[in-house]
Amino acid sequence: MQTGLDLMKELSITSPSKIVLLVVDGLGGLPHDSSGKTELETAHTPNMDKLAFEGNCGLLQTVGIGITPGSAPGHLGLFGYDPLVFNIGRGVLEALGIGFDLKPGDIAARGNFCSLNAGGLISDRRAGRISTEDGRRLCKFLDGMEIDGVKVIVQEVKDHRLVAVFRGEGLHEELSNTDPQQTGVPPKEVSALAPEAQRTARIVNQFIAQARERLTAHHPANMVLLRGFSQKPDFPMMSDIYKLEVAAIASYPMYRGLAKVVGMDVLQTGPTLADALSTLEQNYKKYDFFFLHVKGADAAGEDGDFNRKVCVIEDIDRALPRLLALKPEVLIITGDHSTPAALAEHSWHPVPCLMYSKWCRPDRIAKFGESDCREGGLGQIQATSLMPLAMAHALKLTKFGA
Amino acid sequence: MQTGLDLMKELSITSPSKIVLLVVDGLGGLPHDSSGKTELETAHTPNMDKLAFEGNCGLLQTVGIGITPGSAPGHLGLFGYDPLVFNIGRGVLEALGIGFDLKPGDIAARGNFCSLNAGGLISDRRAGRISTEDGRRLCKFLDGMEIDGVKVIVQEVKDHRLVAVFRGEGLHEELSNTDPQQTGVPPKEVSALAPEAQRTARIVNQFIAQARERLTAHHPANMVLLRGFSQKPDFPMMSDIYKLEVAAIASYPMYRGLAKVVGMDVLQTGPTLADALSTLEQNYKKYDFFFLHVKGADAAGEDGDFNRKVCVIEDIDRALPRLLALKPEVLIITGDHSTPAALAEHSWHPVPCLMYSKWCRPDRIAKFGESDCREGGLGQIQATSLMPLAMAHALKLTKFGA
Repeated sequence: MQTGLDLMKELSITSPSKIVLLVVDGLGGLPHDSSGKTELETAHTPNMDKLAFEGNCGLLQTVGIGITPGSAPGHLGLFGYDPLVFNIGRGVLEALGIGFDLKPGDIAARGNFCSLNAGGLISDRRAGRISTEDGRRLCKFLDGMEIDGVKVIVQEVKDHRLVAVFRGEGLHEELSNTDPQQTGVPPKEVSALAPEAQRTARIVNQFIAQARERLTAHHPANMVLLRGFSQKPDFPMMSDIYKLEVAAIASYPMYRGLAKVVGMDVLQTGPTLADALSTLEQNYKKYDFFFLHVKGADAAGEDGDFNRKVCVIEDIDRALPRLLALKPEVLIITGDHSTPAALAEHSWHPVPCLMYSKWCRPDRIAKFGESDCREGGLGQIQATSLMPLAMAHALKLTKFGA
Repeated sequence: MQTGLDLMKELSITSPSKIVLLVVDGLGGLPHDSSGKTELETAHTPNMDKLAFEGNCGLLQTVGIGITPGSAPGHLGLFGYDPLVFNIGRGVLEALGIGFDLKPGDIAARGNFCSLNAGGLISDRRAGRISTEDGRRLCKFLDGMEIDGVKVIVQEVKDHRLVAVFRGEGLHEELSNTDPQQTGVPPKEVSALAPEAQRTARIVNQFIAQARERLTAHHPANMVLLRGFSQKPDFPMMSDIYKLEVAAIASYPMYRGLAKVVGMDVLQTGPTLADALSTLEQNYKKYDFFFLHVKGADAAGEDGDFNRKVCVIEDIDRALPRLLALKPEVLIITGDHSTPAALAEHSWHPVPCLMYSKWCRPDRIAKFGESDCREGGLGQIQATSLMPLAMAHALKLTKFGA
């Protein structure tokens, strides 16, 4: 039986039409206590509302009903990759998040400094949450070791967190974690979860032993814990699946890294929405699919700042005419997940989605907001259905069967 | 785990109730620029509207979201067969399309005449699009060969197109195409894609060599290309799955052939809707499921003729009282796919569906049209859910579990 991506690969054709996917990170929300309206419903968005009137609205389930997605699965769903099938390891995600340029075969691990007591037992799994500056200084002690021909690169992330990358021939990712996830016990040894990973396990254990020696005088950060050992996944490329020339316009390292994993060209751009639009304009002729990422709404939601999230959405709405001037055949505005200010974190609520194209069958929606989206023409669908819909409306799919 | 058809086979029971499935080919549409209404919404359909009021409306996804179905997958979905699982080869479809009576084991291929230059390279893959009459004359040169006990039947389709059927013992369909899909290269030899198909490949190659000799003086049609080698699939029969006596009333060869593939009795009928209704009336007592196919709406849509499509739908509405006089327990009016006049081809838009039975839980819809269907009681469902719904409303399914 054929499934989603196979079917796209079979049916997709090249054509001159353009698709723009504008991802407003954390777009979905929950109502404000006083108004009963969500962030998106509160925002004054005449341009989005006009697009909603002319196009189709709906709600997207990113992973599944009731499941709160992280940023990576949230985006993978929008790109058409079922996040339950296409998994990216935690170590790789942490490396992508700091913009680390992972090579094929590299093993990345999430790490953190911790405190050991005199008996060698973990007394604090986060080493008293040392500063990022201290973290950076301590990472330098660990960075650059060479063990059995394998180079170990250690880089700080934030506070007590770090990334360790093992680079060399013949490494395997099937490794257990060293972090016991509790205090009062010693760090665990790494063990191989598959026979071919035994050498890699020995190398990692040697690294940890040397790290312990080098950190011995640096209490509270006198040890490291590692978990999520993983290699950059070998996903099918969007260009092969959809026969598209695909570009990403995103300023945060995490999203740039994610875009590379699915084979997008990641364009140089600045931090603002205006920068992103300039990049889009300059590259508009060269590609036929653009992923544009806007971070601000998610950050405001995570901070529990309802009003700031409203402002971010209004800023995007004001910028839309510049995007629309390019006349993309298909424009999608959606999020990778909801981040309601009321919860101050990612949530499981389905994500509002707006698709504009001249081939949309009209629905009765004239305002872009969660309540209206529920009654929209797209229905409540899996995020993985978004790319097939975008491709269809861009007239980039041939008929299935005669 | 049980899937759709298994479950139907387990739960279905015989009963005297009747189900009529009226397929208005290409029923779904897109709004007219001036009115904002689709073909179906524009049509004056008092009878359908009354049924919509008393029954349930909804939208059907035939293959999947964003996927434009061909006629065969479109119909298979309505009959309850997942078109992604139940695949019919291209050669078989072409043979069904001309009403060729394929026997079990026959291998059918789609073919076309092409032009070879003096160097044996393809100069025109369509032989200058010769007339159907010329095609028929040339097919006679190729028809009736006997190679290693295998008879080769060649029949014209239209213009430069033909069907070649290989009939004999022990043939296998796992064969590559001879059509290189480009000019400037020679036709390819057929090769076996499985070891057991090697003899079949030799026979086909001998046929092609002889065809080349026989056509040598007939430039521009001095060679044939063959592709889509396939055998009539061995699908489960509707009568076994649903315990129904099933009849098809369709005048186009393609739909008659398709009905045979799922085990329907294909009734003799004339080309008009009145003919179809007479056939229905004459056979009403003998069967308990009728598939009634009306082609006109699709043809009008393919021609981009909005008004003609409206007229076809109105004609059907006017004929409904005659059908309703038979008092079927379940009447379904839907399409196999959308064919909006605006696109002048099949499209991916979900198909409006109306189900009438005294056991429908009422929805709030009083008009049969795409926008209303979106808010109807059936919801937006896969076409494969239609047969279980029809069976349920005809009280032909027992309870699942105690």
